[in-house]
Amino acid sequence: MMSPSNATLAKHKPKTESDTPSLRDRLIETRALSAELARPLGDEDQVVQANDDASPTKWHLAHTTWFFEAFLLKRFLPGYQVFDERFEYCFNSYYESVGARQPRGKRGLLTRPSADEVRAYRAFVDEALDRLLDKPLSPEAAELIELGINHEQQHQELLLTDILSLFAAEPLKPAYRAARPGVGVSEAEPLSFVSFDGGVFEVGHDGSGFAYDNEGPRHEELIRPFRLATRCVTNGEFIEFIEDGGYATPTLWLADGWNTVKGQDWTAPLYFEKAEGGYMQMSLLGFRPVDLAAPVTHVSYYEADAFARWAGYRLPTEFEWEVAAGSVPLQGRTLGQNHLCAMPAKGGAKLKQMFGDVWEWMGSAYLPYPGFKAAPGAVGEYNGKFMCNQFVLRGGSCVTPEGHLRRTYRNFFYPHQRWQFMGLRLASEV
Amino acid sequence: MMSPSNATLAKHKPKTESDTPSLRDRLIETRALSAELARPLGDEDQVVQANDDASPTKWHLAHTTWFFEAFLLKRFLPGYQVFDERFEYCFNSYYESVGARQPRGKRGLLTRPSADEVRAYRAFVDEALDRLLDKPLSPEAAELIELGINHEQQHQELLLTDILSLFAAEPLKPAYRAARPGVGVSEAEPLSFVSFDGGVFEVGHDGSGFAYDNEGPRHEELIRPFRLATRCVTNGEFIEFIEDGGYATPTLWLADGWNTVKGQDWTAPLYFEKAEGGYMQMSLLGFRPVDLAAPVTHVSYYEADAFARWAGYRLPTEFEWEVAAGSVPLQGRTLGQNHLCAMPAKGGAKLKQMFGDVWEWMGSAYLPYPGFKAAPGAVGEYNGKFMCNQFVLRGGSCVTPEGHLRRTYRNFFYPHQRWQFMGLRLASEV
Amino acid sequence: MMSPSNATLAKHKPKTESDTPSLRDRLIETRALSAELARPLGDEDQVVQANDDASPTKWHLAHTTWFFEAFLLKRFLPGYQVFDERFEYCFNSYYESVGARQPRGKRGLLTRPSADEVRAYRAFVDEALDRLLDKPLSPEAAELIELGINHEQQHQELLLTDILSLFAAEPLKPAYRAARPGVGVSEAEPLSFVSFDGGVFEVGHDGSGFAYDNEGPRHEELIRPFRLATRCVTNGEFIEFIEDGGYATPTLWLADGWNTVKGQDWTAPLYFEKAEGGYMQMSLLGFRPVDLAAPVTHVSYYEADAFARWAGYRLPTEFEWEVAAGSVPLQGRTLGQNHLCAMPAKGGAKLKQMFGDVWEWMGSAYLPYPGFKAAPGAVGEYNGKFMCNQFVLRGGSCVTPEGHLRRTYRNFFYPHQRWQFMGLRLASEV
Amino acid sequence: MMSPSNATLAKHKPKTESDTPSLRDRLIETRALSAELARPLGDEDQVVQANDDASPTKWHLAHTTWFFEAFLLKRFLPGYQVFDERFEYCFNSYYESVGARQPRGKRGLLTRPSADEVRAYRAFVDEALDRLLDKPLSPEAAELIELGINHEQQHQELLLTDILSLFAAEPLKPAYRAARPGVGVSEAEPLSFVSFDGGVFEVGHDGSGFAYDNEGPRHEELIRPFRLATRCVTNGEFIEFIEDGGYATPTLWLADGWNTVKGQDWTAPLYFEKAEGGYMQMSLLGFRPVDLAAPVTHVSYYEADAFARWAGYRLPTEFEWEVAAGSVPLQGRTLGQNHLCAMPAKGGAKLKQMFGDVWEWMGSAYLPYPGFKAAPGAVGEYNGKFMCNQFVLRGGSCVTPEGHLRRTYRNFFYPHQRWQFMGLRLASEV
Repeated sequence: MMSPSNATLAKHKPKTESDTPSLRDRLIETRALSAELARPLGDEDQVVQANDDASPTKWHLAHTTWFFEAFLLKRFLPGYQVFDERFEYCFNSYYESVGARQPRGKRGLLTRPSADEVRAYRAFVDEALDRLLDKPLSPEAAELIELGINHEQQHQELLLTDILSLFAAEPLKPAYRAARPGVGVSEAEPLSFVSFDGGVFEVGHDGSGFAYDNEGPRHEELIRPFRLATRCVTNGEFIEFIEDGGYATPTLWLADGWNTVKGQDWTAPLYFEKAEGGYMQMSLLGFRPVDLAAPVTHVSYYEADAFARWAGYRLPTEFEWEVAAGSVPLQGRTLGQNHLCAMPAKGGAKLKQMFGDVWEWMGSAYLPYPGFKAAPGAVGEYNGKFMCNQFVLRGGSCVTPEGHLRRTYRNFFYPHQRWQFMGLRLASEV
Repeated sequence: MMSPSNATLAKHKPKTESDTPSLRDRLIETRALSAELARPLGDEDQVVQANDDASPTKWHLAHTTWFFEAFLLKRFLPGYQVFDERFEYCFNSYYESVGARQPRGKRGLLTRPSADEVRAYRAFVDEALDRLLDKPLSPEAAELIELGINHEQQHQELLLTDILSLFAAEPLKPAYRAARPGVGVSEAEPLSFVSFDGGVFEVGHDGSGFAYDNEGPRHEELIRPFRLATRCVTNGEFIEFIEDGGYATPTLWLADGWNTVKGQDWTAPLYFEKAEGGYMQMSLLGFRPVDLAAPVTHVSYYEADAFARWAGYRLPTEFEWEVAAGSVPLQGRTLGQNHLCAMPAKGGAKLKQMFGDVWEWMGSAYLPYPGFKAAPGAVGEYNGKFMCNQFVLRGGSCVTPEGHLRRTYRNFFYPHQRWQFMGLRLASEV
Repeated sequence: MMSPSNATLAKHKPKTESDTPSLRDRLIETRALSAELARPLGDEDQVVQANDDASPTKWHLAHTTWFFEAFLLKRFLPGYQVFDERFEYCFNSYYESVGARQPRGKRGLLTRPSADEVRAYRAFVDEALDRLLDKPLSPEAAELIELGINHEQQHQELLLTDILSLFAAEPLKPAYRAARPGVGVSEAEPLSFVSFDGGVFEVGHDGSGFAYDNEGPRHEELIRPFRLATRCVTNGEFIEFIEDGGYATPTLWLADGWNTVKGQDWTAPLYFEKAEGGYMQMSLLGFRPVDLAAPVTHVSYYEADAFARWAGYRLPTEFEWEVAAGSVPLQGRTLGQNHLCAMPAKGGAKLKQMFGDVWEWMGSAYLPYPGFKAAPGAVGEYNGKFMCNQFVLRGGSCVTPEGHLRRTYRNFFYPHQRWQFMGLRLASEV
Repeated sequence: MMSPSNATLAKHKPKTESDTPSLRDRLIETRALSAELARPLGDEDQVVQANDDASPTKWHLAHTTWFFEAFLLKRFLPGYQVFDERFEYCFNSYYESVGARQPRGKRGLLTRPSADEVRAYRAFVDEALDRLLDKPLSPEAAELIELGINHEQQHQELLLTDILSLFAAEPLKPAYRAARPGVGVSEAEPLSFVSFDGGVFEVGHDGSGFAYDNEGPRHEELIRPFRLATRCVTNGEFIEFIEDGGYATPTLWLADGWNTVKGQDWTAPLYFEKAEGGYMQMSLLGFRPVDLAAPVTHVSYYEADAFARWAGYRLPTEFEWEVAAGSVPLQGRTLGQNHLCAMPAKGGAKLKQMFGDVWEWMGSAYLPYPGFKAAPGAVGEYNGKFMCNQFVLRGGSCVTPEGHLRRTYRNFFYPHQRWQFMGLRLASEV
């Protein structure tokens, strides 16, 4: 399904330079994948915004395109004329340095430009990117293309989580894609733990290859001996928490978590619904029985933290996780495997499921690393200005695009948010 | 533009009975007009809801269809199977007797059923209506068809006011239709008044032909001598009020009005924008300079009342208006003339513009007439349950469908609402 | 209890002029009664505001005093120096013409001036009023004193309803005064109706003696024959409505009423609480079992209207009520009788309880009478600017001060409000 | 001013045991200080709640008393009967394990129990504490007394910050106490920095003497070399930031901070008002000109962070601060010095003002230390459940009671809060 399909970009694959080819290929693939992900959706599906956290598909498609136009083409492609000057207002996300923009909560009002016009906009910008890539690139431009690819990959994941939030809000509960036979019938492996030694470890990105600014500077952290669960917490385990009165026991919760539980009438993870004979959950594969062996998905930090307290454990810190992740290959069930839902862990009592399936909530606030400085200009707004009130998630999910992850990757969300593919893994002192 | 185009309904025009033919013809025309009104819009335009007051075009198209299915076909067409059982939840508007429904503020989440499916739903119901009309109708069924026609006509007006509210909220400010040349260049006729004698008058609908339940019972009202302006208040006059500090003078306003002005930062009618050299206003014809000679449009009751106080007049009561309306022909610039905006009054110092152009705010609360009883069952929820907190408007607008109005017609909205084509006419004691 | 106790004012009762003496006496009595009503309260009770509708006792005491200072003393007492210039900001209620003021919802923040200072303010102004009254008064000044007396009487009623709203919000549920023995044990008289002929009747105040501007102009109204219940609806009857599912049956309610019921979780009148063996209600006499024979109190217009619909009746119009009230003496159980709660009707199948006990919701929107014009200046803001979105209540309550009522008196509140002593009486067509 | 004045407690000072005496003395002093702090206030001042963050004085006085009753007397004083069973509902703050309670935002509704009753409640509990202390205490009871003392000290600081928030909201802007002559006329010392070496340091409380649970476990932290300003940022420096457009420059702010600035219309620290010739600020000493040499007070984390970014520095981490604090004596201008406002730093280019004057915002999220476990039972709710969404502040303020601080002391507030005596100190990498 995920093969490139964007004709304009695909036709001249560059052959000359040793470095840019792969950049161009990856750009082509990334741009094609966005279009591919929108394909199962009607134009109507693409325009509506289900809530303030989520953006419409069409907006994602246009915003990622505008990103290349605003930060790359206008600066580096001589004579480039923007497709439509008014699109900057429509499709700037949050770059204060760039200027005024459609308010975030009103992205769903943009019936115009139409989906057709947005597709034309994508083609226009792809064609211009193609021209840009025909000539040798300055390092700065190459870096911005790399950033643009990674940026678009993030929006690919958001596109899927956001369309799920829309479909879950619709009375007809449509599926993004039909489920494959056999999904959801396996049994969970028993919970076990792996121990890690303490010490001073280097963490953070070392500067080789692309990384977001928030992954550095690489620095030393003092880590105490710890134990980490070999797999994520499953739906079955989380249902035990529910049925033990987890959502009705204030002493298990952080104060802000408990206020949220009461204020929002939370009684289960997002998209869960109690039905006769068990729990159902809305997913990209439709409204389906919960797979007890699969990782619990769509839980907030508050729920993850309360579950861990109930179970007698805690969440890992992001540095514990990063040290542990150094011991396993950088692979997992991400978007390329096309499950579109988190799958049960397999493989016995070793550390697994560190990448893919669900993002794992860390017990670490999202803060700058020592010595962090945001880049100057609009691109510097990418990560730094969000370093407050959020928690770190690590490891990627079943809808994270291939090649997007790193061991040092730091995702971050507010502790009440749960519409992403979020779960947890238990940890403890040794 | 407004010719019937719905093939299914159009093909067998009944010829036999003396009474139903015209009902059938009017049904066919009405159903066709709805489709016609949606034609300039893309499917994306039809799905989005700009605010809680407005509904998406697609919802209007489906809801009016559901109305015939729920209240007519299920009862009167033997063997009728509903198109899709889930549509009742999706497209019931406010009928508590019928059951649960999509919350009003979330009608814009319904990307499914798609616009195509809604069109198929319309064709399916039209075909069933056609079959129903092939046989002699019971009086009750005929009455419900009549109600369904009038109901759909109301939604046609709403469809246009609601799409305007969406387009006005979009940064690209699209026009529903291009303006004709020459619109907006005339000069207003001077304001003059017509006097009416007092006395006891019969008002309300006399029961011949269709009327909504809220127009009756016909009864006597004691009316004092009064004067009524020959035409509506113009944009030019309203701009004088603005420039005289009308929106900054609390003593001109009702207390609730002043709170609204302050709370909502109102400084002009809805869709107005101050520009160099004058005012612009968003309209179905796009974002255009205000026509100073045309009736001011999109003002709330609060603004109408404050303007009247500033001008030294008052709003007429609905019974004064009805008595005055008895002296002029039931005709005006409504949807059939296809202006899609209010036009300047023409014709000298006689009473004019009583029908069409803009709904006129009355100084009358929307309350039941003496002896009013709502009909039993769901249809009884049509009007009666809204008889609180709203004010009456009379006379119809430039987007009221042909044949929909009566001299006794009572429209009603909350005093803060202004997204309809609402204006005012001055009155005073003699 | 209600004897004058304000020494400053009481000591020189004027003896010379034929007209002002009674005005002075009434002023003295009124001023004294306010102090008397505050006496059972601690200073702490007097400063807190339980909700945005209610004002603190201290604020009432100061605002009524400011009213005399601002509208009377500053204009008519030569050389008068205000007690404290800053009090105008603190104690102006809603007079936009006068200037900025403490926001209504923040009256409860005024711990300063202290209750002692407010008492000193009252004494200071009383003494100045005394001096003013020593000399012949201009008609305009006399009229403003009359207005000030009536204004203060209104605030006396509010003081009691507002302190009840505070005490009801407190966990310790204090009583304003202990109940007398024997309250609440009688049985209700059966419901019966009196018929009235139709015709054209004069209504509104005829200009002799004091009345608020909203009671005029006197004018003719056409009234149809009607029937009016001989007494108010009782708690017992209202509990039948509750137990018949009244609060769970949407078709009994106005749409706005139903939204309020759902949005506010209403299941009974305000201050009701279901207990073992029946209903309790918080009152000025404390938290006590509901007296089944007494008029239901603290119901909104929505509840009154829904009850009437459930019972097969309707609410009377304010003109029907006024015509009927012309047939009975202007007397009832008001504040002077010192019950502090509505009492059961007594006296058989004749019209009774028209004055006192509970204000009765009318099925009439609060609108200006034909030819109404607000007075110029700040005093003109008294009534006119509220003529929108409210409903009329007639007849006074158990906490309306003696001598305050008239047959033409129009009270008004929003249809959702119920913290006043509000009930209803049924009516119907003949 | 701060001498003990509570007769009941003061009269039998224990003389026998070597350990409890000082505990008893400190208990007596602490209880007496609370009463002393309330003395300048009228009972009305003590009952009102200015906003949801602040509690009324009376509530603080009663809650701290209830704390001893609920956690100490009921368990350890045989035969103890509570003063009034209903007070638990009224004066429990947030202990879910204890039960239901008056909602936080409605503490200001409690006009009952009256201030007199609360004073009697204090005397009653003090007397019981006295009896308890007459006998040898179990270690657990002694620990709870220690906790109760520290708890009450925290509320003493809150009492002052909360009464300031009330007085600042009042139009008459009363002073809690008159200012001493000469306050506010000095000049700020120049800004300079002290350097610290990096390394692995032990931080957190070592268990000797009392500390809150959140200060431990003591553990090692890896710290990089850093520089710390010798004094806090002054009002004069902060005004430079304001006048350089700090509040209008989005790129200086965290995203959540910028949303707060826009949403709340912030243009200066809390209680600041721009006046002719400079800035005024409401304080416990009344509404006074800002002292340019004194530490800026009443800034949020967002403002502290934005200022630091503008100045080219950053906030210190809590561990950097704690290491630096190890180098200076544990003394500063706290409540005992009775300034009631932050004072200019004095003493040249060495580290100063580390304790007292203003709490300093740290760039550290408030999270559990490694191995932290909340105590079992209600007391375990003291700190742990707030470890989310807040930031750490260090060092105490001008209104922190004597003897309350430690170098390991961790205060915490939400980043938008600023009604405490909060300021900042700059830091940087070396």
